[in-house]
Amino acid sequence: MADILHRVGIKGPLSEVYKALATREGAAAWWTGNTQGESKPGGMLKFRFHTREGNEIGGFDMKVLELQPGRRVLWQVVEGPAEWIGTKVSFDLRQEGDYSIVLFKHQGWKEAAEFMHHCSTKWAIFLMSLKSLVETGKGQPSPEDVTVGDWH
Amino acid sequence: MADILHRVGIKGPLSEVYKALATREGAAAWWTGNTQGESKPGGMLKFRFHTREGNEIGGFDMKVLELQPGRRVLWQVVEGPAEWIGTKVSFDLRQEGDYSIVLFKHQGWKEAAEFMHHCSTKWAIFLMSLKSLVETGKGQPSPEDVTVGDWH
Repeated sequence: MADILHRVGIKGPLSEVYKALATREGAAAWWTGNTQGESKPGGMLKFRFHTREGNEIGGFDMKVLELQPGRRVLWQVVEGPAEWIGTKVSFDLRQEGDYSIVLFKHQGWKEAAEFMHHCSTKWAIFLMSLKSLVETGKGQPSPEDVTVGDWH
Repeated sequence: MADILHRVGIKGPLSEVYKALATREGAAAWWTGNTQGESKPGGMLKFRFHTREGNEIGGFDMKVLELQPGRRVLWQVVEGPAEWIGTKVSFDLRQEGDYSIVLFKHQGWKEAAEFMHHCSTKWAIFLMSLKSLVETGKGQPSPEDVTVGDWH
């Protein structure tokens, strides 16, 4: 088992960071503009990605397992690339001075294949988009996300 | 044992990416401006970091274990934060169409502590700086690096 781990500190209130993680509208503003479904415990969120030209390039269905206001959001992947199915994505939050700290984990990868390396870099980019959303009011969700290479 | 893994694709020749990784001048242009020492097998590189105000905030001494032109660079941490000592940092390169692919690994962490989460995000940022250096001629090495939070 291998994990993707990240940590960002966001200059802004925990409540704003939580809102960006725990609501459909929030996720659509930093991860992917095409986010559908219901963000409630037991609910399903459907994240879809497109090229800038508008071609769909797949996505993920995530079951919302935990929503603890100001503290934690936990999703589990139900549909998507084979490597993602069954993995869990969590965001643990806490205040530290002026910062809201986000500890991110994408756990349960069966192997540390090349695709996992790519996803690790890409999650960092999206967490920076989340940071930007809370700090400036504007994220860079797909399809306006920063590209990290030939895989997109 | 836990690992930090990343993958970036850089639009540029392998030889340029390798030069940026395998030379002191290269590393100084994407990781930290204060890079000293000799990049040769068995040599030692000293990476030091400063705040934008010029205060030193530590760094790493790395032994150069492997330099395979156009293919691989491997360092081992000899001095630095306790969590880093003994860990290995590798860059595996290959051509894929117009892209030079960099598979990055920072291996041998004893535990997945919060500091490791931070370093994972930060490595992604520095690999994007490497990408920018090769693609545009300009990286964002420390102390001009992108901040990811309260730890810097």
